[in-house]
Amino acid sequence: MLPASLARYLPVLDWGRRYDRNALTNDLIAAIIVTIMLVPQSLAYALLAGLPPEAGIYASILPIILYAIFGTSRALAVGPVAVVSLMTAAAVGQVAEAGTMGYAAAALTLALLSGMILLAMGLLRLGFIANFLSHPVIAGFITASGILIATSQIGHIAGIKTEGHTLPEMLGSLWRNLGQINFITLVIGVSATGFLFWVRKGLKPLLRAKGVGPRMADVLTKAGPVAAVVATTVAVWGLGLDQFGVKIVGDVPSNLPPLTMPDLSPDLVSALFLPALLISVIGFVESISVAQTLAAKKRQRIVPDQELIGLGAANIGAAFTGGYPVTGGFARSVVNFDAGAETPAAGAFTAVGLAIAAVALTPLVFFLPKATLAATIIVAVLSLVDLSILRRAWGYATADFIAVATTIGLTLIMGVEVGVSAGVLVSVLLHLYNTSRPHIAEVGLVEGTEHFRNIRRHAVLTDPSLVTVRVDESLYYANARYLEDYLYDRVLRDKAARNVVLMMTAVNEIDLSALESLEAINTRLSEIGIDLHLSEVKGPVMDRLKRSHFLHDLSGRIYLSQFAAFCDLTSLCDRKLKAAE
Amino acid sequence: MLPASLARYLPVLDWGRRYDRNALTNDLIAAIIVTIMLVPQSLAYALLAGLPPEAGIYASILPIILYAIFGTSRALAVGPVAVVSLMTAAAVGQVAEAGTMGYAAAALTLALLSGMILLAMGLLRLGFIANFLSHPVIAGFITASGILIATSQIGHIAGIKTEGHTLPEMLGSLWRNLGQINFITLVIGVSATGFLFWVRKGLKPLLRAKGVGPRMADVLTKAGPVAAVVATTVAVWGLGLDQFGVKIVGDVPSNLPPLTMPDLSPDLVSALFLPALLISVIGFVESISVAQTLAAKKRQRIVPDQELIGLGAANIGAAFTGGYPVTGGFARSVVNFDAGAETPAAGAFTAVGLAIAAVALTPLVFFLPKATLAATIIVAVLSLVDLSILRRAWGYATADFIAVATTIGLTLIMGVEVGVSAGVLVSVLLHLYNTSRPHIAEVGLVEGTEHFRNIRRHAVLTDPSLVTVRVDESLYYANARYLEDYLYDRVLRDKAARNVVLMMTAVNEIDLSALESLEAINTRLSEIGIDLHLSEVKGPVMDRLKRSHFLHDLSGRIYLSQFAAFCDLTSLCDRKLKAAE
Repeated sequence: MLPASLARYLPVLDWGRRYDRNALTNDLIAAIIVTIMLVPQSLAYALLAGLPPEAGIYASILPIILYAIFGTSRALAVGPVAVVSLMTAAAVGQVAEAGTMGYAAAALTLALLSGMILLAMGLLRLGFIANFLSHPVIAGFITASGILIATSQIGHIAGIKTEGHTLPEMLGSLWRNLGQINFITLVIGVSATGFLFWVRKGLKPLLRAKGVGPRMADVLTKAGPVAAVVATTVAVWGLGLDQFGVKIVGDVPSNLPPLTMPDLSPDLVSALFLPALLISVIGFVESISVAQTLAAKKRQRIVPDQELIGLGAANIGAAFTGGYPVTGGFARSVVNFDAGAETPAAGAFTAVGLAIAAVALTPLVFFLPKATLAATIIVAVLSLVDLSILRRAWGYATADFIAVATTIGLTLIMGVEVGVSAGVLVSVLLHLYNTSRPHIAEVGLVEGTEHFRNIRRHAVLTDPSLVTVRVDESLYYANARYLEDYLYDRVLRDKAARNVVLMMTAVNEIDLSALESLEAINTRLSEIGIDLHLSEVKGPVMDRLKRSHFLHDLSGRIYLSQFAAFCDLTSLCDRKLKAAE
Repeated sequence: MLPASLARYLPVLDWGRRYDRNALTNDLIAAIIVTIMLVPQSLAYALLAGLPPEAGIYASILPIILYAIFGTSRALAVGPVAVVSLMTAAAVGQVAEAGTMGYAAAALTLALLSGMILLAMGLLRLGFIANFLSHPVIAGFITASGILIATSQIGHIAGIKTEGHTLPEMLGSLWRNLGQINFITLVIGVSATGFLFWVRKGLKPLLRAKGVGPRMADVLTKAGPVAAVVATTVAVWGLGLDQFGVKIVGDVPSNLPPLTMPDLSPDLVSALFLPALLISVIGFVESISVAQTLAAKKRQRIVPDQELIGLGAANIGAAFTGGYPVTGGFARSVVNFDAGAETPAAGAFTAVGLAIAAVALTPLVFFLPKATLAATIIVAVLSLVDLSILRRAWGYATADFIAVATTIGLTLIMGVEVGVSAGVLVSVLLHLYNTSRPHIAEVGLVEGTEHFRNIRRHAVLTDPSLVTVRVDESLYYANARYLEDYLYDRVLRDKAARNVVLMMTAVNEIDLSALESLEAINTRLSEIGIDLHLSEVKGPVMDRLKRSHFLHDLSGRIYLSQFAAFCDLTSLCDRKLKAAE
């Protein structure tokens, strides 16, 4: 038992024992490509989170190794991502001033809380909680976050200070500080942005046309940000542009990630708990979507509860090594997968590459302009913005449209935490509302068959003494009273009615509230001389009804089929069919 | 149009024009009986709410008249009720000290807010919100409230001061103040309680045995509290017991309800808004349950949204005439109904009776001991306590048991507001959790029929290349990923699988999240050479799917029946059946 259960919690024991030279080569190549991509990206996301640039690199080293040990995805690359960086800035900004010691310390606390929440959810098998985030809410939230992130970087592109975490705040501060604009910064920022857009859209076709192989073209395209970083750094250093007000990254310590102790004072923990919960759930949803997409391509399997443990370990690792909340990122994972990574060892090699970068390369980024980092962020996040979800939801279902519009609107206007919480709440309420008024059809027999159809849509046989009602929804507390009202409305003033049959084909559950409604219906109909019957009750529903007094009190009968009920309660059945039954 | 729509909002126009002498007689008799019952009850509930005794009578006059004009129930009696009085004490106790001017003023604000919320819900047709309170939550809440109310009155019975609004607080303060016990008060309180229990259980059989008619026996039984009031008042007055520490009602102003202006300062309104919302919803649920029970007995009809308007008007009336939040009460409505009330005019006559009592009878209650009022409350609310709901829920379904246990436990320990809110939240989460892991069965053909059954329970025909899955739940965001996981688990490593059919008999809805999951399933299965088909899709579901790209992208087909799918995708069908199809 022990080895089996150990292997469950330590997937590394499974793939590690079959590791060979071929896998090693593939993993090493993937690691080199991912490392090159991650250096500028990690610096940029740390900037987005309001942290010193090295925090982004630190957050990519130990977390990657821990995920490689505990996670189930072969290709997922864990580290800072755009949306979680934005949420970190919003959460930590509420308890500390950006750039202070307290700010970085609070980011560690946030990572630890987030890690402990993820770990607890994994151990308690609560992975299903992520299911309560609907696709429209996630899509709306990611889109709105992309807009917020891009807006937050406009200031860096132009050398203007931007404040706030909502669209009106940021646009307002950009407008007020328009006078601060630095034109040299603007030239660097706009050129870098334009260049990166061109790399993304135009470079690959060009390289392919020049005869470069598809995989090499891909690698060169992903290296675009590195080229922008090198070019603008050299320009600033060579021309001394930092003396003309161009903001640069400056001193970054040259060392391995430090050992850090997160501050666990009760005030800080209680202020950051809710944001940490939201970051955990959002991060988990983002990560598992990526992991499942990549795993399915190789018929591999992702275990959601074990993913929670892997991500939890990664975040706890980030908290003790100077990082901030991390999760599985889309861009980096896809690059890792495309570059041929076979096992999580590729992630471990990437961690080694980043550790070398942390020690050896940091002096080289002293003159790197922040505008270039902002450009890499803007180009990366604009691919997240997809307003077509609004159109698709509008065309498909009103409830989904309301959910997505609420999420996008409130995220932009009130911030990420309010936005995603309101989205979840609205989805739940709309689902309850929709199922609280189920489709109820009165049905009759299609002549010559044993099928029953809606009397409003089909020419069917009916008998005035028999009312047959089909409810197209499970019966539970939110719609129990609706069914009661419907039946009383339908039957109480119908002098001809003698029998009511509830046809239960679509009823997958009857909870205690609905059971009590059925009991009330049975009693009230009895009082006015009408019998209540049920037909086509499903096995699990019947099992549960047997545990109550309802079947004993029922004035009518339980029929296996609606046809049997119809034949028994009316004289309209064909004799032969009746005999065959 | 105008008269019809007026009659909709003013039900009085409907029954008023057909009012005759016979109805008048019946209504008058009912009004006299109800008035006799209401005088002590109104004083008692005001005491429970922490208000001066006259507030209970004032709260029964204008509200009854306004409900008679706007409400749809013929027999509902509106006024102070036990649970709402308790909730009022809990809410107002948070913003003011009991017995102060501010306390009574805050109760008026609470009534006005509650009235405006009910009115708004009625005009916006939000009556369905009450459906989100499940039966177990309501039953648990009423039971726990009964226990809290009875406990809060123990102190009055013994002459001890009781503090707090939760069971531990109240029991703790009773224990600490045990030295204050007044033995004369205790004798009065215990005798009154014992007498009232005897009246409730033993008097009616005794009267019937002595040859008293059933209706008269009922009336005499209901007059029990009046006898207790008279006897103990006379005893206190005659023996001068108030000088030995027996707490009495004391001076009650002799006038008609005063015109009062509720305090609408923003701080007070924001502090009382949430409690007012809870009181509105709980009061509405209690009221409409009573109204529907009584209406069904006479095949009459209750319009929930119009009831909200009636109760809203009643509460607004209470706010401007020195009252506090009111609703339709169970005991008083049943007495009204049993006494033969035919129209809401009975309520109006009751209001006149109470107005006379307010002017003429109040000096008579000067020596009425508070212990007697406490006894009437205890005897009344203990009939609300019904712990059997715990046993019934336990036997029926775990989710219902968790909901009811949470509600009872938290109401007792944390108070009414936390208790009912937690109950609602837990019900919603459990419902989502249950529907997020739907029953999914793999099915095969029952030989010689066109029926498909679970392959684990029945001997059925299957083909290794065809996987047919029946999902017994609507597909929506909370279970979309579960279905994806199930299918990937089932199919990704099954080398023989070529076709997957989703049998949609129990799927009443597919929301956008589920649609995207189906699209993802379709794409991933295609990538590994498996076609996805649907069978038995319901009309409304199909209509919606037609508005998306899904049917266009689907690798397989849509089959009207599962049998048609089976015959098309396997060679196992009987030729004759195939021909007939």
